[in-house]
Order: sequence, then structure tokens, then C-alpha cells
Amino acid sequence: MFLTRTEYDRGVNTFSPEGRLFQVEYAIEAIKLGSTAIGLKTKEGVVLAVEKRITSPLLEPSSVEKIMEIDDHIGCAMSGLIADARTLVEHARVETQNHRFSYGEPMTVESTTQALCDLALRFGEGDEESMSRPFGVSLLIAGHDENGPSLYYTDPSGTFWQCNAKAIGSGSEGADSSLQEQYNKDITLQEAETIALSILRQVMEEKVTPNNVDIAKVAPTYHLYTPSEVEAVINRL
Amino acid sequence: MFLTRTEYDRGVNTFSPEGRLFQVEYAIEAIKLGSTAIGLKTKEGVVLAVEKRITSPLLEPSSVEKIMEIDDHIGCAMSGLIADARTLVEHARVETQNHRFSYGEPMTVESTTQALCDLALRFGEGDEESMSRPFGVSLLIAGHDENGPSLYYTDPSGTFWQCNAKAIGSGSEGADSSLQEQYNKDITLQEAETIALSILRQVMEEKVTPNNVDIAKVAPTYHLYTPSEVEAVINRL
Amino acid sequence: MFLTRTEYDRGVNTFSPEGRLFQVEYAIEAIKLGSTAIGLKTKEGVVLAVEKRITSPLLEPSSVEKIMEIDDHIGCAMSGLIADARTLVEHARVETQNHRFSYGEPMTVESTTQALCDLALRFGEGDEESMSRPFGVSLLIAGHDENGPSLYYTDPSGTFWQCNAKAIGSGSEGADSSLQEQYNKDITLQEAETIALSILRQVMEEKVTPNNVDIAKVAPTYHLYTPSEVEAVINRL
Amino acid sequence: MFLTRTEYDRGVNTFSPEGRLFQVEYAIEAIKLGSTAIGLKTKEGVVLAVEKRITSPLLEPSSVEKIMEIDDHIGCAMSGLIADARTLVEHARVETQNHRFSYGEPMTVESTTQALCDLALRFGEGDEESMSRPFGVSLLIAGHDENGPSLYYTDPSGTFWQCNAKAIGSGSEGADSSLQEQYNKDITLQEAETIALSILRQVMEEKVTPNNVDIAKVAPTYHLYTPSEVEAVINRL
Amino acid sequence: MFLTRTEYDRGVNTFSPEGRLFQVEYAIEAIKLGSTAIGLKTKEGVVLAVEKRITSPLLEPSSVEKIMEIDDHIGCAMSGLIADARTLVEHARVETQNHRFSYGEPMTVESTTQALCDLALRFGEGDEESMSRPFGVSLLIAGHDENGPSLYYTDPSGTFWQCNAKAIGSGSEGADSSLQEQYNKDITLQEAETIALSILRQVMEEKVTPNNVDIAKVAPTYHLYTPSEVEAVINRL
Amino acid sequence: MFLTRTEYDRGVNTFSPEGRLFQVEYAIEAIKLGSTAIGLKTKEGVVLAVEKRITSPLLEPSSVEKIMEIDDHIGCAMSGLIADARTLVEHARVETQNHRFSYGEPMTVESTTQALCDLALRFGEGDEESMSRPFGVSLLIAGHDENGPSLYYTDPSGTFWQCNAKAIGSGSEGADSSLQEQYNKDITLQEAETIALSILRQVMEEKVTPNNVDIAKVAPTYHLYTPSEVEAVINRL
Amino acid sequence: MFLTRTEYDRGVNTFSPEGRLFQVEYAIEAIKLGSTAIGLKTKEGVVLAVEKRITSPLLEPSSVEKIMEIDDHIGCAMSGLIADARTLVEHARVETQNHRFSYGEPMTVESTTQALCDLALRFGEGDEESMSRPFGVSLLIAGHDENGPSLYYTDPSGTFWQCNAKAIGSGSEGADSSLQEQYNKDITLQEAETIALSILRQVMEEKVTPNNVDIAKVAPTYHLYTPSEVEAVINRL
Repeated sequence: MFLTRTEYDRGVNTFSPEGRLFQVEYAIEAIKLGSTAIGLKTKEGVVLAVEKRITSPLLEPSSVEKIMEIDDHIGCAMSGLIADARTLVEHARVETQNHRFSYGEPMTVESTTQALCDLALRFGEGDEESMSRPFGVSLLIAGHDENGPSLYYTDPSGTFWQCNAKAIGSGSEGADSSLQEQYNKDITLQEAETIALSILRQVMEEKVTPNNVDIAKVAPTYHLYTPSEVEAVINRL
Repeated sequence: MFLTRTEYDRGVNTFSPEGRLFQVEYAIEAIKLGSTAIGLKTKEGVVLAVEKRITSPLLEPSSVEKIMEIDDHIGCAMSGLIADARTLVEHARVETQNHRFSYGEPMTVESTTQALCDLALRFGEGDEESMSRPFGVSLLIAGHDENGPSLYYTDPSGTFWQCNAKAIGSGSEGADSSLQEQYNKDITLQEAETIALSILRQVMEEKVTPNNVDIAKVAPTYHLYTPSEVEAVINRL
Repeated sequence: MFLTRTEYDRGVNTFSPEGRLFQVEYAIEAIKLGSTAIGLKTKEGVVLAVEKRITSPLLEPSSVEKIMEIDDHIGCAMSGLIADARTLVEHARVETQNHRFSYGEPMTVESTTQALCDLALRFGEGDEESMSRPFGVSLLIAGHDENGPSLYYTDPSGTFWQCNAKAIGSGSEGADSSLQEQYNKDITLQEAETIALSILRQVMEEKVTPNNVDIAKVAPTYHLYTPSEVEAVINRL
Repeated sequence: MFLTRTEYDRGVNTFSPEGRLFQVEYAIEAIKLGSTAIGLKTKEGVVLAVEKRITSPLLEPSSVEKIMEIDDHIGCAMSGLIADARTLVEHARVETQNHRFSYGEPMTVESTTQALCDLALRFGEGDEESMSRPFGVSLLIAGHDENGPSLYYTDPSGTFWQCNAKAIGSGSEGADSSLQEQYNKDITLQEAETIALSILRQVMEEKVTPNNVDIAKVAPTYHLYTPSEVEAVINRL
Repeated sequence: MFLTRTEYDRGVNTFSPEGRLFQVEYAIEAIKLGSTAIGLKTKEGVVLAVEKRITSPLLEPSSVEKIMEIDDHIGCAMSGLIADARTLVEHARVETQNHRFSYGEPMTVESTTQALCDLALRFGEGDEESMSRPFGVSLLIAGHDENGPSLYYTDPSGTFWQCNAKAIGSGSEGADSSLQEQYNKDITLQEAETIALSILRQVMEEKVTPNNVDIAKVAPTYHLYTPSEVEAVINRL
Repeated sequence: MFLTRTEYDRGVNTFSPEGRLFQVEYAIEAIKLGSTAIGLKTKEGVVLAVEKRITSPLLEPSSVEKIMEIDDHIGCAMSGLIADARTLVEHARVETQNHRFSYGEPMTVESTTQALCDLALRFGEGDEESMSRPFGVSLLIAGHDENGPSLYYTDPSGTFWQCNAKAIGSGSEGADSSLQEQYNKDITLQEAETIALSILRQVMEEKVTPNNVDIAKVAPTYHLYTPSEVEAVINRL
Repeated sequence: MFLTRTEYDRGVNTFSPEGRLFQVEYAIEAIKLGSTAIGLKTKEGVVLAVEKRITSPLLEPSSVEKIMEIDDHIGCAMSGLIADARTLVEHARVETQNHRFSYGEPMTVESTTQALCDLALRFGEGDEESMSRPFGVSLLIAGHDENGPSLYYTDPSGTFWQCNAKAIGSGSEGADSSLQEQYNKDITLQEAETIALSILRQVMEEKVTPNNVDIAKVAPTYHLYTPSEVEAVINRL
């Protein structure tokens, strides 16, 4: 049985007899090894919070970037292979800049997400832009446009969904249940910060400090919290 | 016996000794895993209805798009890999726009369907536009042109058929028999809505709500029902 | 023994130790699964007749096209993979149009057939136009040019033969023997219609109706019979 | 032992440990399945004769072409895959026409043969013109140029030899011995016709008729015999 | 189990069922065979120190370059395949020179590191610039820009981290623990030199001499120590 | 053990664990199956002699060319695959003609040999000019330039050596020992002819006749012996 | 265990699980089969000496070139596949000539060596210039530039080192130990000649003669010793 699978995914982008795409499923496994990230949408804006695994005290915590700005009005949290995420984010930055240049207005959050997923879908095609394998990363894309705040979730298959709240990474299963219990559409941005961090605390093995978590909001513009702002949220827990 | 099959479909687009194309057959399996979609043609126009699997209460139901507009006069419902369907729909949108621009008139529904199938057929050819594997998606294409309303059904092999009524996805077998019993060419559009939704209700595991089904019509232009319009149809059941 | 074969045809276009091309032979198997088609040449013109498998009463019979026009003076009946046949027919239509444009006269039936076979022969070559596998389809090409009426038969190897009468598809073996018994060069076009349909009736499992057969003639121009014209032939049986 | 061979010829153009090229040898097997063709050189010109396998009485005998004209002064008989032979002949026709156009004189028979073999040799190279496998065909090339009449024999390896007489195809072994007994350089063209047909008669399973053999001569221009001319030769036997 | 791995990494850039990229992991093994390199950041600048394996007394020690200048303000130490490192360094030199030329100012250390990692990430893509396998080398990149001194660490996956201190190569495990004990952010550059060399001494099998270690600093410009400057540091141990 | 070899040479141009290139070694085997060729250098010029295998009395002996002219001052004898040799000779003819055209003087024998070997070395590279496998042929290149007469020997690896005398092909081992016994630098051209033919006679299974051997000399221009000139040498034996 | 290796190096340029590149290691094996070459640097210049294997007395010794000139001021000795070495040397000759033409000054010895190694490193990349396998050759590059005399050693991985003295090829192990004993930086050029030849004599199976060794020096220009100059060195032994 297992041998049969190995036969199939040598061709990185072919169906198995059951109609499955194994390389995409294996890439999704890569994300289950990643650190946890959480996003919550409120009426005031969207909050993103991530766990940072600081493997050595000699590492510069601020250089472990798991939340990145795409444009003024869009940011994203990631889980999985960081180098792959950087490629996707870089692609999205170019797309949003080109859109601003061509149309004189910001790209919508959905279009930006679609552009990311188009690139992700075309792995194994031998294109200039595409990878020879699926991108081993999931993203939580937080944004604010003419439709107000929005939160998208993408996976390595190039599919995306719009969510009110979502967790990705190794602790996502537990975190998603907690979100379903604690989330409602009327929470404030401050409540969202508290929920995000309290759930992260549950799935992390270490004590939460401004060094091993990052928080950002898009409300309505992207802002990465300073260590003291993170400290303030921790203190509210 | 099984091993023999695995040998053959490494080359994604080669015949087996029995004259079969396994990658296409496996892609068809992918569709059997998909949610159910139903289409019915009436003299007034065509109705499409799909099941939406909302896996989490935190997901935004409206972002799970299983019915999409191609042009003013053409829409489609899909079952299988959503990211693949988006690529096909995007291709069809460009084709219909180009046709309008070049000829100053809308593309016929059959030509649009043929354009989609040409792309689907050429998988594994290494072209710029084509995929390295079959598209893992079936479409129900509803349209209205100079020949009146029409409904097409496409599969991953790049073949298409014109139908009066058709179901695709995991519940298609049962739904197709119900359609044969309940459908006739003289039903009204409103009757078509009711038949579509009552059949969907049979194959869905959950209670039907405006959140987990979508309905659209092309009569003669594309219109996606609002939640309250869907509610109205549900109430008629 | 069987394993040896599987080894060879991974390379789609290579010889086996016995000097055989297995992918071509497997493609020929695909045709044996197809519906039956029959062609007869008379002095007045050529008749084509095909079985249409209408798998569901909800399918639009006229959308199951197994006989297609290539040019005013050429039509063809097909058996095997319909999507492949459409590609070949589309190629032939472009060739005949280009010929008319360049030389101001219709392309001969033989040249048109040769053009189709050139494309079929070059599978696996990595060309822009060619497929990565053999075309899984046989064609009966009926035409009328300066040499009078003619009927050609092509197979997936890119070979073609000129015939007086020929059957292809799943019922071809029985139909070919019947043709040898009933055909002679002096039959009228009307007799040819009758022979074609009576033989089709023998190999079809269902009762023959204007819905499940198509008839066309090239005499000297292409004409697809209307349901009532088909009905008339059925009534003569 | 056999397995080892199968390993080697997956790469279509690689040496085996014994210094052999298996794909070429397998292509030569394809020719052993072909119908028999015979060529004889006389001082007056060259005679070609071939067996035509008419598998069905409904086939048009004249459409089974096993002898083709290349240029006014060159013709060829073939055994093996007819579609491959057509490609080679078409290539040779273009070469000889280009030569006439560029140099104002006919191409020599040897240069034409060399041009055919250059194309045959380069199989598996991925060129625009070349095939991905050896051409599965042998040719007897008859011609007449400034050096008088000449007869060449080519095989799938791209090698050629000049001969006085030669047989190819399934009956070649017996036919070659008969030729060695009956041929001498001083026979007349008419004697050559008789010898060719009497030897063909020995290797054919059916009675020889103008329908199942073709004869052509280059003396000094190419001429394919009409059925009545063939009949006349048969009557001389 | 082991067989399964070998199956997967024939495709150099594909996921295993557990979501791992084996070729990258194997390249990381290549680095574990490499000589040890150490970097320390101080407020005055960054110190790099490497072990040089002089396998023969006839080798010119200065030609074993394990620390190289990228630009005036950036240098790097390497461990793994030296030829691969040279390619990366050469790429970075071109990038920094182009940046100076286009913008009239030095490239930042982070941008330079990102440029190196972009190239490293794209192995197996068939690009002009990229390798067919991962680069088998880790780098410690020391630099000084408008943000002051900084130290980056890259691995074959194309990921990078900013560090205060870091060891790479065969002795990196022991060296990293020693660094964690001895390093703090307030050490002087001279103390950094002493720590680096005393830790190298622990992991090296031979006596430390100016011949078998190299030291460089970026404070704020790149400087490779002369043998006598190295001697001076050794004497302070 | 044998299996291991088969594993390696699927990649036509890769090293075995022992540092060997098997495809080249197998090509060398192809030459051991070839007919014998002998070359001797004298002060007056170089003599080439080859065995011609006339497999049928109906073959035209003069069309079995195993000695060919490259330029006025260079000729070559070959053993192995004749079609491959023709490609190499054709390449050399173009090179020497280009050289004459560009520089107004004949190409030296060494440069011509180097040009042939450059082409031979690059097999498997996917170039326009190169083959996908090694050339299965060895050449003895005889020439005369400003340095006087010279004889070169090339093998499928693209290596060449200058020789005073050399034998290649199936009888080369015995012929080489005989050459070492009988050759000295002071022999006359006529003595060289006699030695060459007497050694050929030893390794050939048939009686030597003007039909089954060819002799040529470059002294200082290329000359292929007429049958009567060959007869004269035979009579001297 | 062995099977595992064979799995890996089918992809010519991929890492094994232990981080090794087997094709490069196998190419290094090819060099261990080669003849021995020795280089020594003195203050006056560099001496190169090689063993020439004259397998037959009929071979022209001067045509077995194992030492070649790259430019006036650079020469190299080689061990391994001679045809590969010729390609590298030809590449280096073009590079040095281009450098002279562009900059009006000779290329430095290090830059020349780097250029050679860049080409060697990129095997398997599918470039126009690169090979599909590693170059199976090691070089000793002797040169003289503005930095005085220098000696470089390259291996198939594309790595190079500067040396005072170095031996390569089948006898390199013994020769290297002898060099370590006998070499010091203050030897004269004449002493270097004597050491080189006395060490070669130890590793060669035959008596040393001007026919089976070559000596060259770069002091400061390249000079290949004449037989009588070699004789003179032999006599000093």
C-alpha cells in the first residue's frame, strides 16, 4: 500500500488512483511541523499572532520573522517553510505595488490572495515563476479594503478560504477548537488580541514572552507590535 | 494487476493495454470526492444549485464559491478541486472578454465550453497554458445565447455534452436518478429551483440552510441568489 | 511476458523486441471500446452512419456529435475518444480553409486525409501541434473532389487506406462481414443508406431511433440528416 | 538475459554491453513483418515489384501504395510501417525539389539516398525533423542519373548499400536466394520484370493478380505499371 | 524505511510523506563534514574565525580561503563545499556592486543575505543561475551598515537568521554551547577574538597556529588578519 | 555485478563507481565487431587498407565504402557503424572546406582530427550537432601537411593518438602484433602496401580479391586504388 | 549498501544521505587510473613532469601530450581522461586570449584556474558550455605572473588549491610523501627537475627514457623540454 504511494508522487503533480495529489498532501504535512499562527477578524480590524521558536539564546528574536507586511493594508502570518513564504510574500509585494502603479489604488485583499494562490497552484509546471514542488507553507492573510477588514487562509494546493478566525501550524487543531468557543463577530480588537495570545499560550511549550511571540494588526493599516506593546497584551492575560 | 496500472500512469498521458487513460480516470475519482452540484434547463433559463461544505463555523460561507460567473450570459457550478476550477473559469472569462472585444458580440455557450475543454484536453503537453496533470474538476455550464438557454457538462477528459439536467459530485448517482424522475422540459424556472434544492437535500448530510447551499440562474443573465432568495426557495420545499 | 510489455511502452514511441509499437496498439484498443460507425461509397456520393450512445434521457441527443463537417465537400465519422477526434477535425478544418485561401480551390480528400495522418503520426515528439500520446480515435473520411466521391479510413498509427465501404468501432468486425456481403459498387445512395442502417441495427443493443443514430452524406456536398430524414430511412428498413 | 536487454533500450539510442543498438534491431524486426518487395537493376533501367496485402475486398487496391515516386528519375519500394515510409518519401521529395531549384539539375540517386539516411540516423535526437524512434521501414530506391541506372537498399540504422538486386520484407530470405540464382547483369528489363514477379509469386500466399502486386520501373524515368501492364507481365510467367 | 527515502529524493526538490525535503537535509549533512567556523557580534563590529584544514605541508595555507570579502562592509565565513561557496560569494559580489552602481550606496547586509538565499532556494528549477542540487554550504555573513554591525547565518534550504553569535561546521554543536556560556552583548571586539579562537582551539584536533586558522573582522570595514595579527590573538589565549 | 553496470549506463554519460564510462566502453565493443582496417606511415606517404565484407554477390562492392576522402590531403579508414562514420566524415569535410575558405590554406591533419574528436566527445549533451550516444566507430586518419605525412587513430571516447602504424576492428589484435614485427620507419610506400595486404589476408576468412579489400594512399594527395591497382598489390604478395 | 549508492548517482549532481556527491567521487576514481604527474614550485619558476604511457612501439611518443601550454606564462600537466583535459585547456586558452585582448595584459594564474573550475563545477546543469558529467581529470597548473611563480592543483569537484609541490594520478600517494621529504622552498629549478624525475622513476614500472616522460617549466615563460633536454635531466639522476 505504502509502496503504491511512493510510486505516484515521483511525478510531483499527478493523481493517485483515488484521485489524490500526494505532493500537496505531503506539503501540508510540512506545515503541521511548523509553529502555530492565529488570526481573528473584528469589526475594527484583524489581529495576527504567531509563536516564534527561538532555538538558541544567541539568535536575534526580531530576525525570526513569521509575520510580514505585504502592503500598507495587508499583512500575513505564516507556518511551514519560511524560505518558501518569503518567495510568496515577495511575489505579493510586487503584485500589489504593480497594481497601485497601474490603477492608482490599492489591490483588494481577495485579489492579492488569488495572486498568491495562482503562483502556488502552478508548481511543477516548469514556469519561470513557479516552483518544482508545492510551496510548503500556509498563510493567514489579514487585510482591510473597501469591503472592510478580512482574513484569508491559504494552503499548499492553491486553495483559499475567507474566515472569521483561523489557526495554522502544529497547534492548529487545539487552537481552532478554542477559537470556535471564544470567538464571536462582535469582539473588540483588544479582546481579539487577548484571545489570540491566550490560545497561543496553551499550545506553546514555553512561557510566553515578547521574545517568542509576534503580534500584528491591520486596522486599517498594518502595524507590527513593539516588544512593549506585546508585553502589554501579555500583562492583560 | 494493480501494479500494472501504477506502471502506466507515471507517464501522465499514455494508454494502458486496454486502451484506457488512467490519469483521466483518477481525476474523475477526485470529482467523486467533491460536493454535489445540480443543473436544470427550463424554457425560461437554467438553474444551478450546489452544496457548500462549511467545515468550520469560523469560515465565511460566502467565500466558499462553488458557482461562478463566466460572462453576463454564462455561469458555472463545479465539483472537485476548487483551485483547478478557478483556473478554468479564469481562462473562460478571458476568452469571452476577448470574443466580445474582437467581434462585438457575446461568445456562444458552446464555443465557451469548447474553449474550456481544449485547455483541459491538453494536460501533460508542456504548453504554457496547460497543466501537467488533468484538471481535477467537472463543470456544469449554464448559459443563454441566440439559441436560447443551454446546459453543458464537462469532465476531466476534455469531453462535453449538452444536457437538459445533470448532477455532478459525490451525490451525483442518486441525484441523477431523481432528476430523471422529476424533470421534464416544460417545468418552470421556479419548479426547477424547487427540484434542484429538494434533490440536494436528499444527498446532503446536514439540514439545508442559506449558508450551505448556493443557487444561481441564467435567465437570460447570470444571477447568484442572495441568502434571502435562497431562504425563499427553502421555504417552498 | 506481460511485464516485458509494460517495460516497453513507458517510452510512448519505441519498438518492442518483436518490432511492435505498443502505445499505438493500445490506442487501437480504445477504439474497440467506441461506438460503431459505417461508411459506404456509391457513384452518387458517400454515406456515413453512426451509433450514438445516449447514456441518459437527460442528455441532448444532438450534442453527441459523432459525424462532423470538415469542409463543404468533406465530412467524417469517428469512433474512440471524442475529444481527440475534435482536435483532429479542428486541425483538418484549418488546413482545408488555408488551402482554399492560398490556392483558391478546395483541398483534395486525399491531401486532407494525409494532413490528418501527419499530425497523428507525430505523437510523442514534443511538437507544438502534436500530442504526447497517439490519438485514440479512428476516422471514416467521406469526400467528393475532382476524382469523384471517395472514402478513407485512418487509424491511430497515422496510416490510411481508401475503401469502398468500412466499419469502425466496437461492432466493426460483424459490420465489416455484412458489408462484404451486401456491398457492390453499383448500389445507389439510397441503397447505401439502407444497408448502413440495417447493419448498425444489428450491432446496436437498443432499438434504432432518430435519437440514437446519425446519418450524413457527401453528394457532392456535406449534409447531416435531420431527424425526419433519419426517420424516413428507418421506415424503409 | 532478456531482462538485461529490456533495461537497455528504454534509452532509445544507447549501446548494449555487447556494442549493439537494440531499438534499431527491433525496428528491423518490424520490417520482417512487412510485405515483400524486390528490386533488380538492368542496363536499361531498374525494376521494382511489391506484394500488396489487400486485407478486405472493400479496400481500394490502388490506395495501398507500396511503390512511390520521389522524383522523375527516382522511385522507391518499401516494406515495414507505411506511415514512416511516407514521412521519408516526403522528406526526399522536398530535398530533390530543392536541389532542382537551387542547382537547376536533378539530385543524384546516391545523394537522395544519403539524405534519407541522414534523417533516419538521427532518431532520438529531439530535432525538429527527426523521430523519437528509428523509422520502422526499409526502402529499395531505384533511380537513373548521369551514372546510369542504380539500385540502393536502406535499413533503419541509416546505412545504405548499392545493389544489383535485392529483396526486403517477410519473404526476403527466400527471395534473395532466388535472386542470386536467377540474376545476372545482362538480363533485359523485360526479363527483370519476369524474375521479380515469379519470385514474388513464390513468397506470396495468394494467387498473383493485378490487384495484389505493384510493379514500377525507372528507365530512365519513373513509371508505375497500369493494371493491364501488370496483367501482361503475369501472363508471361 | 531507508528505501523509501531513496525513492523520494531522486526528484531533488520534492516532499517526502512526512513533509520533508531530503536533498536539503542531505546537503546539511555535507556541512557537518566541513571545518568549523565561528562568528560573534560586538558593538564595535563582527569577528569571524575559521579552522583551515591544511592536509599537506606542501599546500599554500593562504590559498585555503574559508573567509572571503563580499563588499567593503560585508565578509563571510563558510563551511561545506568550497566550490559552492565561491559561486554564492561571486553572486553576492555582483549583487552588491550592481547595487552600489544603481543606487550610489552600499547594499544592506540583510538584502545581501536575502539575495544569496534566493539563489540557494531555487535549486533544481533549471534556471540559468541556479544549481541542479542544493548548495552544500553554510555561511556566516558579517556586515556593518546603517543599522550597525550584524551577523547572519544561512543554510542550504535558503533560510537565514540574524544571530549574536553562531558556529557552523563539524564542531558547531560543542562550539555553540561554549558561545552561549561565554558570549554577552557587551564584550569588546578584542574579547570576541579571544573567545572565537579559544573555542576553535577546543574543536580542532591540532595545535592552533597562524597557518591553520583565519580571522577577519568587519569593524566597520572588512579586514582579514595577517599571520602576525593572528599570532597576536593566539598569544592572548 | 552485471546488474550494477546496467544501472549506470542508462545515463549515457556518467561515471561508474570505478571511474569508468560504460557507454564509451560499449561503443568500443561495437568496433570489435567491425571489419579490420590497417594504416602505415612511410616517408613517402601513408597507406590505408580495409577489409570489405560483401555479404551478398548482388551487392555492388564499390558501394561498400570503408575508406573515404576528407580533403585532398586527408583520407580515413573506418571500423564500426558505417552510418556513424559517414556523419563524422561529413563533419570533417565541412570543417576542412571552411578552413580553406577562411584561411586560404589546407587544415592541418591534427586540427582535422581534433575537430572530429570534439564532436565525438560531446555525445549525450543535447547539442544540435552531437549524438545522444557515443559514435560507434574508430577511424584511421591519414594525411599529409606542412609537417609531412601523418597517421592518427581515434576512438569513441574522443581521444586520438598519432601512430606510425595501427590496426582497428575485429582483427586488430593479431594485426597489431604483426605490424610491430614487420614495420619500421624506413619502409617504402610499396612495402607498406604489401605489409598491409598480407596482414589483412591473415585476419580475413575469405581469399583476398579486388572486390573485398580497398586500399588508399595519401602521398601527398588522397588516392583510392582502382581494382587493377589493388590486383597489382595482391599479385605482389 | 552498494545498491543505495547506485540509486543516488543516477541523478549526476545530487547529494547522498551522508552529504556526498558520488559522481564527483567516481570521477576522482578515474584520475586514480591515470598516469602520474608532478609539479614543484621554486623561486626561479615551476617544474612539471609527467609519465607517458606508450602502449605500443608504433605510437608516436610526441603525440601523447600530457603537458600543454595554456598561455605564454601558464602551462598544465594532467592526469585522467585526456579528451576531457583538452576541453578544459581549450576553454582556458580562449579565456586567457580574451583577457589579453580586453585588458591588454596577461590573465593571472589564479583567475585562469578559477575560470577552469567554474566550468568544472557546473557539470550536469545543461548549459551550452558544461558537460553532463564531471570532468574526469585533475590538473597541475604552473604559472608566473605579477605575484611570481605559482602552482595550482584542481580536482573534478571544481575546487582548487595553491601548492608548493603536488603529485596527481595513480602514483600520487607515494609521490606526495617523497615530495614532502625532499622539497623545500629554497631548491633551485635544476634541483626541482631532478626531484621530479627521480620520484617519477620510483612510481613508473618501466625505465625512464626521453620517450616516456615529459618535462616542462614556466620560468617565467612556458617551455616544453626537448628529448635531449629530458635526456640531460635523466643523466643527472
